[in-house]
Amino acid sequence: MRLIIIGHQNRREVIASPGSNLLTVLQETGSQIHAPCGGRGTCRKCQVEIAGIGQVLACRTTLDEQLAGRAGLRADEPLTVLLPEPAQAQISTDGLIPDFNLSPLMNRGTIRLTEPSLNDQRSDEERFTEATGLNVPFRLLEQLPAALRDSAFQPAFVFCSACAGAEGSAVRFIRPDGPAPLGVAVDIGTTTLAAYLYDLDSGKRLASAAGLNPQRAYGADVISRIDQSSVSPEARHALRASIAGAIAGLADRLAVKAGHKLGMNISTDDIVHYVFAGNTTMLHLLTGLPAAAIARAPFIPVSRRAMTLPAAELGLPLAADAVCQLLPSISGYVGADITAGILACGLHHLPPGQNALLLDIGTNGEIVLASPNGLIACSTAAGPAFEGANILCGMGGVQGAIDSMACREGDLVYTTVGESNGNGKDNGQSIRPLGICGSGLVAAVAVLLDCGLIDETGRITDEPANLPASLRQRLIQYQEQAAILLVPREISATGHPIILTQKDIRELQNAKAAIAAGISLLIQQAGLRPDQIDRTYIAGGFGNYLDAAHAFRIGLLPRELRGSTRAAGNTAGMGAILCLLDHTALAEAESIARSVGYFELSGDKRFTDLYIEAMMFPETDD
Amino acid sequence: MRLIIIGHQNRREVIASPGSNLLTVLQETGSQIHAPCGGRGTCRKCQVEIAGIGQVLACRTTLDEQLAGRAGLRADEPLTVLLPEPAQAQISTDGLIPDFNLSPLMNRGTIRLTEPSLNDQRSDEERFTEATGLNVPFRLLEQLPAALRDSAFQPAFVFCSACAGAEGSAVRFIRPDGPAPLGVAVDIGTTTLAAYLYDLDSGKRLASAAGLNPQRAYGADVISRIDQSSVSPEARHALRASIAGAIAGLADRLAVKAGHKLGMNISTDDIVHYVFAGNTTMLHLLTGLPAAAIARAPFIPVSRRAMTLPAAELGLPLAADAVCQLLPSISGYVGADITAGILACGLHHLPPGQNALLLDIGTNGEIVLASPNGLIACSTAAGPAFEGANILCGMGGVQGAIDSMACREGDLVYTTVGESNGNGKDNGQSIRPLGICGSGLVAAVAVLLDCGLIDETGRITDEPANLPASLRQRLIQYQEQAAILLVPREISATGHPIILTQKDIRELQNAKAAIAAGISLLIQQAGLRPDQIDRTYIAGGFGNYLDAAHAFRIGLLPRELRGSTRAAGNTAGMGAILCLLDHTALAEAESIARSVGYFELSGDKRFTDLYIEAMMFPETDD
Repeated sequence: MRLIIIGHQNRREVIASPGSNLLTVLQETGSQIHAPCGGRGTCRKCQVEIAGIGQVLACRTTLDEQLAGRAGLRADEPLTVLLPEPAQAQISTDGLIPDFNLSPLMNRGTIRLTEPSLNDQRSDEERFTEATGLNVPFRLLEQLPAALRDSAFQPAFVFCSACAGAEGSAVRFIRPDGPAPLGVAVDIGTTTLAAYLYDLDSGKRLASAAGLNPQRAYGADVISRIDQSSVSPEARHALRASIAGAIAGLADRLAVKAGHKLGMNISTDDIVHYVFAGNTTMLHLLTGLPAAAIARAPFIPVSRRAMTLPAAELGLPLAADAVCQLLPSISGYVGADITAGILACGLHHLPPGQNALLLDIGTNGEIVLASPNGLIACSTAAGPAFEGANILCGMGGVQGAIDSMACREGDLVYTTVGESNGNGKDNGQSIRPLGICGSGLVAAVAVLLDCGLIDETGRITDEPANLPASLRQRLIQYQEQAAILLVPREISATGHPIILTQKDIRELQNAKAAIAAGISLLIQQAGLRPDQIDRTYIAGGFGNYLDAAHAFRIGLLPRELRGSTRAAGNTAGMGAILCLLDHTALAEAESIARSVGYFELSGDKRFTDLYIEAMMFPETDD
Repeated sequence: MRLIIIGHQNRREVIASPGSNLLTVLQETGSQIHAPCGGRGTCRKCQVEIAGIGQVLACRTTLDEQLAGRAGLRADEPLTVLLPEPAQAQISTDGLIPDFNLSPLMNRGTIRLTEPSLNDQRSDEERFTEATGLNVPFRLLEQLPAALRDSAFQPAFVFCSACAGAEGSAVRFIRPDGPAPLGVAVDIGTTTLAAYLYDLDSGKRLASAAGLNPQRAYGADVISRIDQSSVSPEARHALRASIAGAIAGLADRLAVKAGHKLGMNISTDDIVHYVFAGNTTMLHLLTGLPAAAIARAPFIPVSRRAMTLPAAELGLPLAADAVCQLLPSISGYVGADITAGILACGLHHLPPGQNALLLDIGTNGEIVLASPNGLIACSTAAGPAFEGANILCGMGGVQGAIDSMACREGDLVYTTVGESNGNGKDNGQSIRPLGICGSGLVAAVAVLLDCGLIDETGRITDEPANLPASLRQRLIQYQEQAAILLVPREISATGHPIILTQKDIRELQNAKAAIAAGISLLIQQAGLRPDQIDRTYIAGGFGNYLDAAHAFRIGLLPRELRGSTRAAGNTAGMGAILCLLDHTALAEAESIARSVGYFELSGDKRFTDLYIEAMMFPETDD
């Protein structure tokens, strides 16, 4: 069958076999389609419009003659599929970064060589290596004779200060008047990507860019993606190609932005260094390593070490000789994003006697505790509620998501991402809500608890008599379960109401109980009490948008941490930037990754007890 | 224009642009065609037959309508080109090899690993590396999870004992019941290729194979090939592809032979290690490095170091993970073949107080002198006379070439390659002569000197009165120059007479003078006299077929070396085998290549004087 696929500023025609599943066809032909449940039909996010029929779930749609008939088509006419336009990625990209010495891995050099003669018949390689102390990799030898002779034996080059043993290594030959070598730090999140372009000569940031991880099309969470990638080597390569293409796209955008800023032509060819942070699964999917054993107990990654490889070997469609560094991971579920976060927050050299926590809350909550006895970390499966998945009206923290809520004058009010800057400051825009993101969910439940729409067990009240009418009328039924109307259809961006169901609240309770139990157990394990924690860093966009008061209200964080918490921003990105600008930080990252004690919660009986306790919402303490 | 090309058990049809040069078309479409002069029209070796026309020189033939007309064809009819069948490659592949300890770079291993559990969550890589001490290269990580789990955590593997630092590195995972790891040593000669397949477990040779270097199509000598490869990057890649294909072909033949011998199925996939020896230019052409600066003073190679690379990176169509090692070169004109020869002859650890010479005589004569003061080497441009090129009836040392000559009962008698085994033993076959190879040329001139057909200046006698009639009638004219009839047309294999012209003799004088002057000067340079040389090794097929008495008679070797000379066989191949079977030999080769003092003859005034002196033939001393 012929399909015309329209969406994302794009119109394409593809041929699909009769009998194919529409979601599979869309995924295989590279359409951006969101299927957090991995095509199981439970998330209902893969809705598309078929001309002549209307909205359908792609995962439930088979391409057959019946479908063509319903669309009013003859057998030889193409079916037109309209993709939903994605919510604009508006990803918080900044964060804490400690002081460092500018000492990038990649530098620019020039050298004046003596010319060859019958009295000095050294090979080109020896002539260059003996003068510079730099190795010349095999790949570059081919260019060496021209580089020497075209420059009258005064070549300009980019070199890697620590790429091939102590001596370092030449990376490429360049024009002496070209742009400074550029480097990019990338944080590969399960949901979002953030990338930062730096001038490696000056250490200045020239551009940043963010986007959604296109592997979302294969499932929202790491398990779905691992399962998808484990179907066949081809599937694994498809996921790899998906993220590789997205990284190349980000690099392109960064180069264009930097070019505008500098008023010169900059392309990805000028980018000579990439540092990647990401969780262990994201880095497996990027490198094409089989991740299947991460998904099931005992959760074994293929590799967790730092890697330094040319882009070509990594299969990235970037300058072939660009040096790509992957930060080291700590375990299957405590990844290089956490290693980078530890670096960025300086957890590995706290002031003497201090204790600190780093929380990265997403589908998995990773928790690191630093104390004078060293670092320990755990990961707890919160489920995707904090990412807005498995929540009826849930969505990521992108423009249009309800990110905060309050009860004012007896009724609910909210802000959406794009209106506020994530730090509470209103930027004057009014953006109609599309759905609710993680921080909005926490805020909503906190507020609904406070105003009595939910009780401490999480149940939506069936005694509405005491509530003001404005709140009472928000109690509705949705598919035979109790629900709360957050935004009526008239003022939502979608034309559908935004509601919170009893099931959504149970999902949140599960999620927050997992995090809270993890924090408690890790503090216990270190022989500490919660009140001994001096600082608590909350990483990620969730940390930025989250109102700490709401987190304490619902018991996501133990009350004793009040006053010590701060949003640390994109700590994974910041740690990657640190490694980009100071090559000694990578060695530090390796030593961190080797030294962090990984504490496996699923092996600990105490965790279940703490988890059940933490399911309840705490009583108000005021 | 359409061409049908017939030859070498093959019939192909190709399309060529009108106006193309026939030699170029044949070369570009992969036909085996010999053009030692590089298409300059001087060697007349690219003769082919065009149906309807007869013999033409391909390099002098333009594909146009006139040609089609001469062949009696309509414009749309294909032209049929018949390639000459090549003389069968019969290459001497053996030689001296010193004692060594079997200690190959590549070995087979198995390990029993503890299985992962919640108490032992090490990554697959750490589990394997900590148990074996072996690194796992990035390329292989992808296969690691399956290799561990499919073998119940008892993987079998091939490893490289010294590939990634002291620890070594895993190379591939294998079936525990598969064949032993196999290795191949290859000597890439300018004219001939020799390859040897070994079982690396036992150190036993399973097969050897030889062939002609298909780059001959681009010229007989290294300068012609460098010039051809310097025309464009595409030309360079074409030469590279040509030798790469030939090596893959040899590997295939070796695998098939070894399979027959062992009674099991062996393929090139079972070959995990290759060691390559060859002159500096051959290794540049193999690695695709631009060789242009080798061709002109001051003769600078891009690199002369030993390289260890996977076949895929080297661009060889072999098992992608096979470890390829290129032996190190000494200078632009003293290559890795000589480094290997020094290893094979043990020149780097002579008995105390001894001096030895290694001669490798071909288009270039490489000479190495070992003395208690160390090793020095030089290279002298003999021209291709010893390879049979630029000699009217010259040819390589392959079946049918006259390789030796004598004067018996007042007339000339000869043997051809294939009749004798190269050691003078008649194998009972009688093979009609096709032409004359290097050793035949030396023998012929020595004999013609002795019987008075040539005088000591090299002139063909114009005073035949004193000669017996049998010899006198051999004095003929060829294209207005004096010539000597060696074989009348009636008994040659070609139907043409085999003759030696005055110009041929001058070519030989030039060649032998270059070698003789090089030897003299190198001995002088070391502060020695010729009578102080204890051993003289003559390498290569030429050394095998050469009768030392003839070499002394024409003054190719100084008389003082009489009694110390021995044919050392394919020393380059033997040195490569040594490195295949004992990985410490490669380190030894590197230390040799670094320590040999290269002596540049073209920078030395004494060389010209010695060269002119050596042009004359010495008087007989009996």
